[in-house]
Amino acid sequence: MPQLRKDPVLGRWVIIATERGKRPTDFAHDRERRRGGFCPFCEGNEDKTPPEVYASRAKASKPDRPGWDVRVVPNKFPALAIEGELERAGEGMYDKMNGVGAHEVIIETTDHDAELAEQSAEHIALILKTVQERMVDLQGDTRFRYIQFFRNRGSAAGASLEHPHSQLIALPIIPKRMVEELAGSKKYYGYKERCVFCDIVAQESWTRNRIVAENDAFISVAPFAARFPFETWILPRKHDPSFEDIGEDDRLAFAEVLKESLMRMNAALDDPPYNLILHTSPVGEKDLKYYHWHFEIMPKLTKVAGFEWGSGFYINPTPPEDAAKYLREVEL
Amino acid sequence: MPQLRKDPVLGRWVIIATERGKRPTDFAHDRERRRGGFCPFCEGNEDKTPPEVYASRAKASKPDRPGWDVRVVPNKFPALAIEGELERAGEGMYDKMNGVGAHEVIIETTDHDAELAEQSAEHIALILKTVQERMVDLQGDTRFRYIQFFRNRGSAAGASLEHPHSQLIALPIIPKRMVEELAGSKKYYGYKERCVFCDIVAQESWTRNRIVAENDAFISVAPFAARFPFETWILPRKHDPSFEDIGEDDRLAFAEVLKESLMRMNAALDDPPYNLILHTSPVGEKDLKYYHWHFEIMPKLTKVAGFEWGSGFYINPTPPEDAAKYLREVEL
Repeated sequence: MPQLRKDPVLGRWVIIATERGKRPTDFAHDRERRRGGFCPFCEGNEDKTPPEVYASRAKASKPDRPGWDVRVVPNKFPALAIEGELERAGEGMYDKMNGVGAHEVIIETTDHDAELAEQSAEHIALILKTVQERMVDLQGDTRFRYIQFFRNRGSAAGASLEHPHSQLIALPIIPKRMVEELAGSKKYYGYKERCVFCDIVAQESWTRNRIVAENDAFISVAPFAARFPFETWILPRKHDPSFEDIGEDDRLAFAEVLKESLMRMNAALDDPPYNLILHTSPVGEKDLKYYHWHFEIMPKLTKVAGFEWGSGFYINPTPPEDAAKYLREVEL
Repeated sequence: MPQLRKDPVLGRWVIIATERGKRPTDFAHDRERRRGGFCPFCEGNEDKTPPEVYASRAKASKPDRPGWDVRVVPNKFPALAIEGELERAGEGMYDKMNGVGAHEVIIETTDHDAELAEQSAEHIALILKTVQERMVDLQGDTRFRYIQFFRNRGSAAGASLEHPHSQLIALPIIPKRMVEELAGSKKYYGYKERCVFCDIVAQESWTRNRIVAENDAFISVAPFAARFPFETWILPRKHDPSFEDIGEDDRLAFAEVLKESLMRMNAALDDPPYNLILHTSPVGEKDLKYYHWHFEIMPKLTKVAGFEWGSGFYINPTPPEDAAKYLREVEL
């Protein structure tokens, strides 16, 4: 079973793969491995993945057979193990526990070559609905405290398979980044008695110089303190702590802004590798006045180097005002 | 002048290059640019860098001419501007200030092809002495609160030039990562009345299963909660808050352990790209009982993907105990 270990200085948890530990030569191999012709996520190859846990499929079709639109399967090489209890323990001064969690893959389409931005807004909404259903289901497991949804596109962004897919990891602890976001937004609320994300939406709607795309319900902006060139956040205009509870209208409205944001990024930057990450409330905290769900899109255009790793300080060579203007004005 | 901007949720500062802002096409160019034949850091090309601020050179030789062993120059494309005051200001709800700081390059040797690990321990000690002298000098500037020393090797680790070099960035604020390390180690001290790093040194010396290299004064270990495969930390055995104050004996002893740690990593992992980062006390905080300087070496073997970016949670496929064993046992 994988192990969760805590850094004694920073309180940061890491997942240590204790069983299938990679040896030095495995990394040399990784560097050289190229994509082969076979894809386990394509229609017809359903028996090459673990059995599906969810699918949106034609009524006459059977599980783990063709006939699906979106399909969810456990990750064949999961970062965490679904069976077991946490069993917190010490090791001298250090803290550890069992690496218990869920790791699922959302196969977004049967079309191997259709990037997310090329899907219809309706199909993107179907993918998002699938994510919501899986999140709600995983939240029923009392061991889990945070469900992380993310998407890696391109090998530079960490994707190991080309077929359009995203992932869910259910964690037994609230990750450090979320703890910090919750603490920061709570502190702002304590001072201002307003949600910091609501204030961001208000100021960006007013100044307009960092807007990438928008509709009545959502706004896509280059954040004021963007870490990366062309980093983009999408936020609901009205206060809402949890993504997994949004209804059909909001889902479609969000899909439209997400699609437009990705299309603009792909057009301006020639289909860059990117990460797409959901930030939402922890499990069981539905009514937070100070937290507001949002997505972050981070194209991978620059390398994170020693300075950033050492300091947590980022150098962004493109002002977000310029990035937003390029994205707004690019020809689609 | 570059701008420093603060994320209103996380309190994380970023450097925004407002003047030479990169456009979308600049990144496409970056991806394709290969190294040419000309190297501005090689001996004889001293006029291709800004004038040196420090050098260890033959007595008869002149500044910005051949005859040096280690040479320090301002970065030709600095992340921060050396002239000016901070001028903190708001922009609606947001906070910003001028991007004031120093950005220097330590050219470690005249030999274009000599990787740090291949230098003699004596030459490595000379490089470290140079770093110390520059740090002490920069600390005299009252605008600066933290001096970050780091080294990027290989383009995957963010190096844009091949010639062996490292960098110093003097910052007007203490970076987030250091604030967290100081807070975490202070909290541990408050509870235990001992330095957390001293405790790490003691436990690792006792269990011995994560040791990579050591001598009487320093220990090199794979940390218990390593984020990355083959991540290695080097710590002084005795409590010491500030790297920049160590004397000649310690410098040489540290150079020996650093050299051995890098040689083992290079041998085991076939000369991987890596980042080497110093963690030391902020400017003007010399006598901290709870903080202990150390170096972190992070080979770049895996890609940081959406999960890590979103959560701050790392997945390490090689247990540090295994990594340390491979490194200890590799043939040199």
